[in-house]
Amino acid sequence: MNTYTKQQLENFCHSVFIKMGCSEADATLATNVLVKADIRGIDSHGVARLSGYVHLWEAGRINPKPNIKIVHQTPSTATVDGDEGLGLVVAPKAMEIAMEKAHNVGSGWVAIKNSNHFGIAAYHALMATEQNMVGISMTNASPLVAPTNSTERLLGTNPMCFAMPAGKYTPVVSDLATSAAANGKLEIAQRLNKNIPEGWVQTKDGHPSTDPAELKKGGALLPLGSMEEAGHKGYALAAVVDIFSAVLSGANYGPWVPPFVSFLPLAADMPGQGIGHFVGAMRVDGFRPMDEYNKNIENWIERFKSSPAIDDKKVLIPGEPEIFEQENRLQNGIPLTDAVTKDLEELGVKLGVKL
Amino acid sequence: MNTYTKQQLENFCHSVFIKMGCSEADATLATNVLVKADIRGIDSHGVARLSGYVHLWEAGRINPKPNIKIVHQTPSTATVDGDEGLGLVVAPKAMEIAMEKAHNVGSGWVAIKNSNHFGIAAYHALMATEQNMVGISMTNASPLVAPTNSTERLLGTNPMCFAMPAGKYTPVVSDLATSAAANGKLEIAQRLNKNIPEGWVQTKDGHPSTDPAELKKGGALLPLGSMEEAGHKGYALAAVVDIFSAVLSGANYGPWVPPFVSFLPLAADMPGQGIGHFVGAMRVDGFRPMDEYNKNIENWIERFKSSPAIDDKKVLIPGEPEIFEQENRLQNGIPLTDAVTKDLEELGVKLGVKL
Repeated sequence: MNTYTKQQLENFCHSVFIKMGCSEADATLATNVLVKADIRGIDSHGVARLSGYVHLWEAGRINPKPNIKIVHQTPSTATVDGDEGLGLVVAPKAMEIAMEKAHNVGSGWVAIKNSNHFGIAAYHALMATEQNMVGISMTNASPLVAPTNSTERLLGTNPMCFAMPAGKYTPVVSDLATSAAANGKLEIAQRLNKNIPEGWVQTKDGHPSTDPAELKKGGALLPLGSMEEAGHKGYALAAVVDIFSAVLSGANYGPWVPPFVSFLPLAADMPGQGIGHFVGAMRVDGFRPMDEYNKNIENWIERFKSSPAIDDKKVLIPGEPEIFEQENRLQNGIPLTDAVTKDLEELGVKLGVKL
Repeated sequence: MNTYTKQQLENFCHSVFIKMGCSEADATLATNVLVKADIRGIDSHGVARLSGYVHLWEAGRINPKPNIKIVHQTPSTATVDGDEGLGLVVAPKAMEIAMEKAHNVGSGWVAIKNSNHFGIAAYHALMATEQNMVGISMTNASPLVAPTNSTERLLGTNPMCFAMPAGKYTPVVSDLATSAAANGKLEIAQRLNKNIPEGWVQTKDGHPSTDPAELKKGGALLPLGSMEEAGHKGYALAAVVDIFSAVLSGANYGPWVPPFVSFLPLAADMPGQGIGHFVGAMRVDGFRPMDEYNKNIENWIERFKSSPAIDDKKVLIPGEPEIFEQENRLQNGIPLTDAVTKDLEELGVKLGVKL
């Protein structure tokens, strides 16, 4: 394990994005989105993904100079064509459009096609909270999750994020994959040589398994709630994310979503363009005066935080764990595993950039 | 078990709502929403609740002649005051406002305060699909669910519904309580004298339990995902529903949400008015032409339905089970348990209405 400052990781990422051919502004934006994941403790979505983006660029699947444009719109809705750009750049630009619409008519909703992996959903939703708006973001993803009763991987871990301004407190953030567990948790269990809880994966025949390597044997991740006889709920939420992100926008959906890794081929007969996202923003004062809202959201938070805890546990507000991790990492540095460090160092050598 | 036709149940409900003092139009609307639950097989939200509404009306907690009005708005957002009306009437009227805004500016979003139980979320969301819009509906509810790590009931089963038009097929509908299980499932297990899966409830001290009567002993329902170490996801979704429905609108939230039963007192120092809902509508053609969308959503459905099933199971589209049940019940009648029949008969005697 090695520890880096935010600035070190940002400098490195910025240089890499410049080497890929991004503009100065886009390299800065992509860097901010990517490193925000590491700062918040979402290690699976931060710099660990950087070399994967480079590989996709090398394979011609990421356009470093995209012409991102609105292709269809009404006063409160739009579809954006990401022109095969980095999702790290396309998604925040789409969110800017949603926020501008919200300024004008109260809310703005943007479906995005022809994009790539967009980092952590929370980055985009949180943009809205800085302007006293509720932010929403979601994305579809490479198929790893089987619908209820199916043996086939047809859905991604399809995250859904809602971020709400919270007065004097940090925003309330609900940011979750609609699968029972993210792939990253399986990788950790594999490294530790440990079994995983039943309900996270199934075998290739659709039977229960506790093997963290099940996906390599043709198995699939399971939807949220599978272990409680409620997997149809996670499946339904993942379907909503897929349809909002891709069927509304014109991106690919289901088994056709482009893989995040360059060594896997694109599917044949793709029905759309690239990966899809969906973002939205609603002005709080489109519903009630901001001061009334603030008084009540602060009361909500205080009431929940003061509720009695089980044993020696602690009742947290959604979004709080990431804020605790952010405070910790900004002070003590961002730890990267040896494997990630090695990957970044090799990337640096290849591109002539020092970590 | 007794079986009734849709018409029989509708006639009875309509007469009861008229006896409560509802207008002819409101009685018809409330009847349609309520009986739709029974038709779709959501027995917990149909006529089984009718006597509960009457009790709340007798206790002065439901206003049969509400003056439902917009109290705050922008072109795409609004807050509606339900004037203590039946949620069965307030919510569809709020959805009409959302749809009108969507007609004008692409989307419409309405937060609702001062309402009561609104029946099945899917009724309201499905209204939008009839006009080629995506529909969204959610509501908070009496506190029964403990946040992750808490022993206290602070959240309702807070359902979240998304309904998407589906071309030549019936709409794709994701309608789910954000708890692992609904209270109705515990009641069924109690009647059958069976244990429930671990992960549905906890004891009053927050420890695991399989006792379907745990709520009567001070225990709580658990958030969706609890058994898979993902209860924070269900908790976060329930929090979103609570904040959208009540902190945006000015309704009550958390422990202050009014109980659905008249024999429980209202909480002291309530911070808002009544129960809160949130509904929204987005025009599909605010994102892409309707024929392109239809072609792709039909393809989505066909691809998912043709995916290989586990053993002798069947891969379903979200919303399909309710359609199957609807076809069955419209043909063969709607079964009511003896307890529900008795409850309705007693209600009928009291109000002079024949079942």
